[in-house]
Amino acid sequence: ARAERLRAALAARGIEAIALVGGPGAGKTALLEATFAALGPAAAAREAVVEGDCATDHDARRVAACGARAVQVATGALCHLDAHLVAHALERLDLRGVSRLWIENVGNLVCTAGFPCGEHRRVALLSVPEGDDKPEKYPALFASADLLVVSKADLIPHVAFGVARCVAAARGVRPGLPHPVVSARTGEGMDAWLAWL
Amino acid sequence: ARAERLRAALAARGIEAIALVGGPGAGKTALLEATFAALGPAAAAREAVVEGDCATDHDARRVAACGARAVQVATGALCHLDAHLVAHALERLDLRGVSRLWIENVGNLVCTAGFPCGEHRRVALLSVPEGDDKPEKYPALFASADLLVVSKADLIPHVAFGVARCVAAARGVRPGLPHPVVSARTGEGMDAWLAWL
Repeated sequence: ARAERLRAALAARGIEAIALVGGPGAGKTALLEATFAALGPAAAAREAVVEGDCATDHDARRVAACGARAVQVATGALCHLDAHLVAHALERLDLRGVSRLWIENVGNLVCTAGFPCGEHRRVALLSVPEGDDKPEKYPALFASADLLVVSKADLIPHVAFGVARCVAAARGVRPGLPHPVVSARTGEGMDAWLAWL
Repeated sequence: ARAERLRAALAARGIEAIALVGGPGAGKTALLEATFAALGPAAAAREAVVEGDCATDHDARRVAACGARAVQVATGALCHLDAHLVAHALERLDLRGVSRLWIENVGNLVCTAGFPCGEHRRVALLSVPEGDDKPEKYPALFASADLLVVSKADLIPHVAFGVARCVAAARGVRPGLPHPVVSARTGEGMDAWLAWL
């Protein structure tokens, strides 16, 4: 109910909220950095980010350095964000002129699945070194996603990862799931990601 | 209390229990495969593994193929193993002649920290592509570990990862933590790992 209220309140202000979920080190913040760089400084100034981590404000500082407005939620022992935490975080963020809100969850392929945070669309990241079996092993998260970003694509030559196997597994739990294959480092696949966005 | 009872019961049978914790795709199962291969088939037959995953029995099949005894716990929506689940899993495992029990937890850097599973020693894995900032962002897990295995060391040339920075962060929450740098794929660092074992 809280998530529904937040989603409606954001929509009423003309703000689209996009959640980023994935394991630790899947490249969620790096994708935001590459996205803001691609959009350019004027557009980045209209982007806002709620960053969730157990500890540190590293990620909020990283995206703020790209020109976005950012607020960090330090969850401590808590393993996920929820709509209550996000709503309170937004009290610390000036949303005037903002057109898009990113909600980057704690790195966690399990607990984040069941907690909507007020987002309109949810993006799951799976980085190549994590392995192509992860959609089978953590089905709830991928079933909850509107998009799968296969991230760190530049590492494909260096690990055993089958894109086709990964996509088949993800579509097994979420039929038709779009799945851009992206490297924030090299720019590969950024066009497909930005087109979806 | 359950974990304490299990730990004592295993010790009384001459079995040392070692927990493996880390994020999804950190290489926990690959480390077991490489370990059993290094020990050889006669020794591997005295090793047993409880595998935790939300879904699938992939990992139990992988370690069984190396000659160890294995049982899979499918946790469903649950994000970690606990001593209760492990004790029940052991009802499905013949421990006669077993000298070491591995408890491979669900891939999760948050929720596994607070739940001892009856292990005598706990090994945290952090794979190179996850990033050297993870001990700062997920301090509870690394604070709970007796050993840090920096895994997937063969990927160091391909990502931005500072071993010194990672180790400093981990030792910031767990002073003196040993930290072998290992590649299950190339064999790098396996000597140090096996020596600790």
